[in-house]
Amino acid sequence: MRERASGTLEVEDRGGILVARVHGGPHQLFGKDIADRLDALVDRADRDPAVRAVVITGAHPDRFVSHAEVRWLQEGGAAVPSVGRRGASAIARAARAADRAHLGGALSRTPLGPAVDLERVHQTFLRMNSSGVVYVAALNGSALGLGAEFAWAHDLRVMADDDIVIGQPEVLLGIMPGGGGTQRLTRLVGTHRSLVAILEGKPFTPAEALANGAVDDVVPSEQVVARAVELAEHFGTRSKESLAAIKRAVYFGGSMSLTDGLRVERAEFLTTVLSADGQEQMLDYMDATDATGELPLYTPGVYAEALASGRVPHVRSTAEAVAR
Amino acid sequence: MRERASGTLEVEDRGGILVARVHGGPHQLFGKDIADRLDALVDRADRDPAVRAVVITGAHPDRFVSHAEVRWLQEGGAAVPSVGRRGASAIARAARAADRAHLGGALSRTPLGPAVDLERVHQTFLRMNSSGVVYVAALNGSALGLGAEFAWAHDLRVMADDDIVIGQPEVLLGIMPGGGGTQRLTRLVGTHRSLVAILEGKPFTPAEALANGAVDDVVPSEQVVARAVELAEHFGTRSKESLAAIKRAVYFGGSMSLTDGLRVERAEFLTTVLSADGQEQMLDYMDATDATGELPLYTPGVYAEALASGRVPHVRSTAEAVAR
Amino acid sequence: MRERASGTLEVEDRGGILVARVHGGPHQLFGKDIADRLDALVDRADRDPAVRAVVITGAHPDRFVSHAEVRWLQEGGAAVPSVGRRGASAIARAARAADRAHLGGALSRTPLGPAVDLERVHQTFLRMNSSGVVYVAALNGSALGLGAEFAWAHDLRVMADDDIVIGQPEVLLGIMPGGGGTQRLTRLVGTHRSLVAILEGKPFTPAEALANGAVDDVVPSEQVVARAVELAEHFGTRSKESLAAIKRAVYFGGSMSLTDGLRVERAEFLTTVLSADGQEQMLDYMDATDATGELPLYTPGVYAEALASGRVPHVRSTAEAVAR
Repeated sequence: MRERASGTLEVEDRGGILVARVHGGPHQLFGKDIADRLDALVDRADRDPAVRAVVITGAHPDRFVSHAEVRWLQEGGAAVPSVGRRGASAIARAARAADRAHLGGALSRTPLGPAVDLERVHQTFLRMNSSGVVYVAALNGSALGLGAEFAWAHDLRVMADDDIVIGQPEVLLGIMPGGGGTQRLTRLVGTHRSLVAILEGKPFTPAEALANGAVDDVVPSEQVVARAVELAEHFGTRSKESLAAIKRAVYFGGSMSLTDGLRVERAEFLTTVLSADGQEQMLDYMDATDATGELPLYTPGVYAEALASGRVPHVRSTAEAVAR
Repeated sequence: MRERASGTLEVEDRGGILVARVHGGPHQLFGKDIADRLDALVDRADRDPAVRAVVITGAHPDRFVSHAEVRWLQEGGAAVPSVGRRGASAIARAARAADRAHLGGALSRTPLGPAVDLERVHQTFLRMNSSGVVYVAALNGSALGLGAEFAWAHDLRVMADDDIVIGQPEVLLGIMPGGGGTQRLTRLVGTHRSLVAILEGKPFTPAEALANGAVDDVVPSEQVVARAVELAEHFGTRSKESLAAIKRAVYFGGSMSLTDGLRVERAEFLTTVLSADGQEQMLDYMDATDATGELPLYTPGVYAEALASGRVPHVRSTAEAVAR
Repeated sequence: MRERASGTLEVEDRGGILVARVHGGPHQLFGKDIADRLDALVDRADRDPAVRAVVITGAHPDRFVSHAEVRWLQEGGAAVPSVGRRGASAIARAARAADRAHLGGALSRTPLGPAVDLERVHQTFLRMNSSGVVYVAALNGSALGLGAEFAWAHDLRVMADDDIVIGQPEVLLGIMPGGGGTQRLTRLVGTHRSLVAILEGKPFTPAEALANGAVDDVVPSEQVVARAVELAEHFGTRSKESLAAIKRAVYFGGSMSLTDGLRVERAEFLTTVLSADGQEQMLDYMDATDATGELPLYTPGVYAEALASGRVPHVRSTAEAVAR
C-alpha cells in the first residue's frame, strides 16, 4: 500500500504580508493536508486585521504544485458505483449540504468523503475571492491541474521565466478540471482560449501565460517571491474593506447578468460609503478641495502619491489650518 | 456651508444627432443636476424618432467629468448610521422600490435620498443600453469615478490624445465604484484587467485605453467631437429598431447564461423579423436576388454601399421593372 | 412563385472523422433542408461511438454558407400580424414548447412554423456545444448571417486566406442575428468587439478574424479542409466523455455566475472521476509513479507524448513488471 504524502504550509509573517511555502512531499502534491492548512491560513488572514496580503509559493525547487494527489481523487471514485451525470450531480449536492452542516469530518471515511473534501477546497478558494486580503501566487515552478486551479484562485500571479508550465492536463487522464479550472481560467483569458487549452490539455509557457493574461508578470526565477511580495505590499496598502467589496463585485457580480451584477455592486458600494473610513476620507477630500481650490486627484502629484501610498493623502488638518 | 455646484447639459441638435456638453461647474462634477438633465435627455432621444444618436462631451477645457460631486455621495452616508453589508443591501432594495414607485422626489431630503438618486442614475444608464439611439462619448478630457462610469455606459468612446486619463480611483478614498464601474468595465476589458485596475485605483492613459478596448479611438484633442459625431452619424444610419434589439441582446442577453441569452436574442429577433420594416427589406432583398441572379450582399459593391448608407440599397422598384 | 432551394449535406467518413459538405443550391443558402440534415448528422455523431469529430465545409467554390434562405425567415413574419416585443416573446416561448413536445412537423405549415424551425436550429447548435464530438468549421469561403452563426457553433474554425469574410450583416436589412450570433460571437471575442461588429453589420476579413480570436487558424484556400481534419484528428484523440464534460462546463457553466458555474463543473467532474475510464487511467498514473519514482507528467517526454496521442501513455503493465 502506498504512503500518503503529508503536506504542510510553512508560513512566515513579514509585517502584514504572510509568505506561505507549500511543502507537498517529494512529488509536491496538493492533497488533503495542504487543503486543511490552506483553509486555516485563509481563516487567519480574514480574522487578523493586521494581515493585508498573502503570498503563496512552492518549497520545491522547480514546482509550485505538481497537481492534486491522484489517490485523493481516485479513492472516492473507486468506492462509489458508476453513477452517470444525474448521480454525480446528486453527490455534488449532498457534499455541498454536508459541508454546510460541518459534517465533513464525519463523512471523510465514507464514499462521500472525497466529494466533501472537494467541496471544502471550493469553499476555501471562494473565500480567497471574497476576502479583503490580496492573494498573490509566486509561481516558482510548474503548476498543473489543481496546482493551476489554486493559482487561478489568487488575485495576482507572478511566474518564473524558466522552463516551467501552467495549465490543465486532466483531459489526458480521461477526467477534467474539478477545482474551478473550467470556470476561473475561462473568466481570466476568455471562453475560447480557455476551451481550447482545456480540451487539448496543453499548458501555457510563461511567455504564453503573460501574453494571454493568465499571469501578471514574468521575472527571473530568483526574483519571483520578491516581486510577488512587492505586489502584495502595493495592493495591500488599500483599504481592506474596499478591496473585499471590489473583489466580490467583480468576481461574483461580474459573472452575473448585467442587471444582477449592478445590484451586487450597489449593495457593496453603499457599505463602503456608509463606513466610518469612507465617510472620513470623503469629508477630508472635500476639505482639501475647499482649502486648495482644486480637486486633490487633479492636483499635480497627488494622484501619483495616492497610488503609491494606497489612499489620497490626508490633508484635513492642513486644510483646516489653512482655512482658518 | 459649501455651495452645491449647479450643473447643466447644453444640447445642440445637428439634424438627428444631439451633441450635449456637460457643464459641471468650476470642478466639472457630476451631481444631481447633471443626473436630472441626463435623464431628460435620454427621454427625449427615446421619444423623438428623428434622434438617431447622442454625442456627449465636456464643456470644461480638459475634463470630460472630473468625478461625482463628493458631497452628494457623502451626505446620505452621514445621515445613516453604519449598517454593514446586510443593511446596505436593504437600503439598495428600498431605493430601487422607491424609484419604481416614483417616490424619488418625496424621499430626496431623507437619509434614503442619495441611494434613491444613485438608483435613478443606474436606471438612466440602463436606458442608454436599451435604446435604439447610439451613444458616443467624446472624451475631451479626463474621466474618473462616475465620469468613467458614465463613459462606460455609452456604446462607443473617442478619447483625446492628450495628457488625460480615464478610470476608477475610488479605492484610494476607502470606497469603491458605485455607478456600474465594476460591472461595465469588467464586461468591456475582461474580468482580470478590470479587477486589477479597480483594486489599484490606477486609471488608463489614452494609449492604454485604446490597447485594451476601453475606448474605440484616440484622436487629436481638437478632433474628438468631430470624430464622435462621425461615428454617431455612421452607426445612426442603421434601423433604430434593429439597433435597440441588438443592444439589448448583447448587453443583457450577452451577460446571462448562454441558454438564457439565446432566449433573449430569439425574442428580440422575432420582433425585428415581424416588423413592417424588416418584412419590407427582406422582400426587397429577394426581389433583387431574382432580378439580378445574385444575392445583393455578394454583388460587387453592394455590401460596401450598405455599410456606408446603413441598409442594403432598395432595388425593389428597379427589380420589378426588370422582372416585368 | 420562387423555387425553394433544396439543400443537402454530403457526408464522408474518414475513419472516425466525418467530413460534411454543405450543398446549399446555386446561392449556397442555409434553409430548412440543411437544418434537417444537420440535425440528423449531429444525432449520428452523438450515437456512433466511433465518430470522434466532424468537419463541416462548403461545397460551393467560394462560400461556406452565404446566409439563411431569406424566404424561410420572411414567410412566417408575413403570416403573423405585427406583435411587438411582448408578442414576439410569447411566440418564442410557444415555439420552444412546441419543439419540446415534438410538434414541429404538425406546426410547420402554420404561422408558428418558422419560429419552430428556428427553435430547432438552436437546439441543434446547442447539441453541438454539449457533445463529446469535436466540431471544426472549414471556412473555404464567406459566411454571413446564419452562415457565421453556424460557424460560431463549432468548437474550432479554420478560414481560407482569401478575399472572403465572416460576420453578421443583419442590421443592414432592418433585422438582427437570430441564430445565436449576438450570444456566441459575444462570448468568443468579448462584449464590446461583438457589439460594435453587429451594430455596424461589418464582417471580419480572415486576418481580422484571426487577430480577434473569431477563427483559430488561417491557411491557403486549398489547405482549409486538410488543416481542419488535422485539428479534428488531434482533438478527437481525447476521451469523448472528457471532451463532452469540458465543453458543457465551459460553454454553459462558463456563462453563468461564478458560483453556479462551479456547481456545473463539479457535477461534470465527478462523472468523469467516477467513470471506469477515469478510474483506470488514474490507477495507471499512480502505478507508473511508483514504478519510475517520478510523476509521468513530469517525466521527460511523457507530457509531449500525451499531447500527441491524447492520453498519458499506459505504463501499467510495464510498471507492474518493473515493480515485481
